[in-house]
Amino acid sequence: MLKNELTKLLNIEYPVVQAPMAGGITTSQLVSAVSNSGGLGMIGAGYMTPDALQEQIREIKQLTTKNFGINLFVPNKFHVTVDEVETAEKNLKPIRQALNLQEEHQVKIPEYRHHAETFNEMIKIVIEDKVKVCSFTFGLPSKEIISELKAHHIILLGTATTVREASEAEKSGMDAVIVQGSEAGGHRGNFISDHKESLIGLMSLIPQVSDHVRIPVIAAGGIMDGRGLMASLCLGARAVQMGTAFLTCTESGAHPLYKEAIMNADEEEMVLTNAFSGKWARGIKNRFIEEMQGKGEAFPQFPVQNALTQPIRKAATSQKNRDYMSLWSGQSPRLAKTQSAEDLIRSIVSEANKIHI
Amino acid sequence: MLKNELTKLLNIEYPVVQAPMAGGITTSQLVSAVSNSGGLGMIGAGYMTPDALQEQIREIKQLTTKNFGINLFVPNKFHVTVDEVETAEKNLKPIRQALNLQEEHQVKIPEYRHHAETFNEMIKIVIEDKVKVCSFTFGLPSKEIISELKAHHIILLGTATTVREASEAEKSGMDAVIVQGSEAGGHRGNFISDHKESLIGLMSLIPQVSDHVRIPVIAAGGIMDGRGLMASLCLGARAVQMGTAFLTCTESGAHPLYKEAIMNADEEEMVLTNAFSGKWARGIKNRFIEEMQGKGEAFPQFPVQNALTQPIRKAATSQKNRDYMSLWSGQSPRLAKTQSAEDLIRSIVSEANKIHI
Repeated sequence: MLKNELTKLLNIEYPVVQAPMAGGITTSQLVSAVSNSGGLGMIGAGYMTPDALQEQIREIKQLTTKNFGINLFVPNKFHVTVDEVETAEKNLKPIRQALNLQEEHQVKIPEYRHHAETFNEMIKIVIEDKVKVCSFTFGLPSKEIISELKAHHIILLGTATTVREASEAEKSGMDAVIVQGSEAGGHRGNFISDHKESLIGLMSLIPQVSDHVRIPVIAAGGIMDGRGLMASLCLGARAVQMGTAFLTCTESGAHPLYKEAIMNADEEEMVLTNAFSGKWARGIKNRFIEEMQGKGEAFPQFPVQNALTQPIRKAATSQKNRDYMSLWSGQSPRLAKTQSAEDLIRSIVSEANKIHI
Repeated sequence: MLKNELTKLLNIEYPVVQAPMAGGITTSQLVSAVSNSGGLGMIGAGYMTPDALQEQIREIKQLTTKNFGINLFVPNKFHVTVDEVETAEKNLKPIRQALNLQEEHQVKIPEYRHHAETFNEMIKIVIEDKVKVCSFTFGLPSKEIISELKAHHIILLGTATTVREASEAEKSGMDAVIVQGSEAGGHRGNFISDHKESLIGLMSLIPQVSDHVRIPVIAAGGIMDGRGLMASLCLGARAVQMGTAFLTCTESGAHPLYKEAIMNADEEEMVLTNAFSGKWARGIKNRFIEEMQGKGEAFPQFPVQNALTQPIRKAATSQKNRDYMSLWSGQSPRLAKTQSAEDLIRSIVSEANKIHI
């Protein structure tokens, strides 16, 4: 009953995809444990270098013979002025001081050209290393790249937050579409729709997208257990993608303080902010978010603000100071558990099988 | 399979409650059709006078022998200054002019004392006329009122947007709790939690509340069909409350232009605004919302702003001008249909029965 055309396409036993959380969370241990347990493990390669990606792909292949995938951020053109960067630096200064960060930790402003080159290198690695599944966030790759990936039989997953975006994903040739509900933790994947207007709850988003596209729908956002899986299937999804639930697993590379913060949080603490990266994202409200809220919403565009706050996030982590870390999480932290990825998948399936409605 | 302890308590055949939409939508025809078709019809009495409520209760009793309910707004203390009212009037002036509203249509500022008296009269009517079910929005009534209603065996439903609010509803003695997801149309029911932080999608809200309260949970927000019903039951709810789906039914008293606006809308148009009433609510973005967005978010508190915009909404309706009407709707307008309430309920049940997951 948990098998369908999508599990067949992805060659997985259960319709459970581990979300490709970027920033060191998707260790080879986590990705391989998920795939070995019947789900689809995913590398969050958004901030990785091509070398590191290649190394991790090879490592995971030592740990599993099952399918796994990778996620890439589609590079967006961005524009910042010197003024914007100076204002942003000024706003961040008190926080740098609180963390004893020296002035010489100045940030190199990212360039679009560099991001586009890295993206192309990552695509080459996906093809060369025969990664079976590749998902995209923040947009859709060019026709040329899609054709090339398809020629190599790589399964492509787009990310959408509205019906309009899901239709674009289908038109572009994606094999399935991940629909990200407003419940989701981490960065919002909207790429055509406006940020606020694309905050659609899964109860509304899944059936409306399912009615409008022919490709399979994968539901993402706040799903933590067998109840969420079965609800998503009822609404028309063919699988779920779960982030926070895998983040607190023992194999995840999230900092222990980060895991602990989620384990102790409630749903009202999961706020939206664009202060960490320049793109809107959902995470636990902490001192960084509160202090930056007073500065309005006009931060330098992603990935510039992300680069500017990177030394802060790094220092906060090494100083074990959760006040200034980015603690991304979906809206269901009360359902988070500390367990192995295998136990999580086993309990999802067993709970789903027990639901007789 | 659609029967449970809540359908038994409410003495209804199907776990479907028609949301008590205020403002003339819940006609006696709609309420009685819902109850006669196996659901629970509800009068949205939030803005009604006690006399009108009494008359409608008697009218519905002529049309059905089944259970139906009413919803009341719990009066909240509010405070406005002369300055706030003057600023609000000034902001609304161009809109009044666009609608040719004369200056003499000055508004009487509501008084809390008056609202509290009306609320008490409504409670008396509920008891005298033996209404079987009474739900509350914007808070919980006093211990005395709850005790009196319980002494008369009236089934009480609270409205909550977070686990914290649902726990308060349970503690107060409510028999069940309606959990309002961020998908919901119309006014937000948050009464302890902050507006923004209480915008929780149902995929997250239902299981977290279900794990924390022992009373049955009724899910509300974006649910339009058998898929939404089954998903809600999977997540732990015992019934659903549906607003927008009943609003476009033939028996609903919503203005034809309002129904048409929903039938032609998509999910990205459903925005949050506090400009109509001083409380946050979700509806179709129109000229009123866009023009008022420029004025910030500091409108006089509910129900003062509501009283100030009332002549505008009334004139817009009589002039058939949807630019200035309040077009409340949830996030699933693409699933709205024009049909009778009986056909809606029949199709929900038939679709739900067909879902084999």
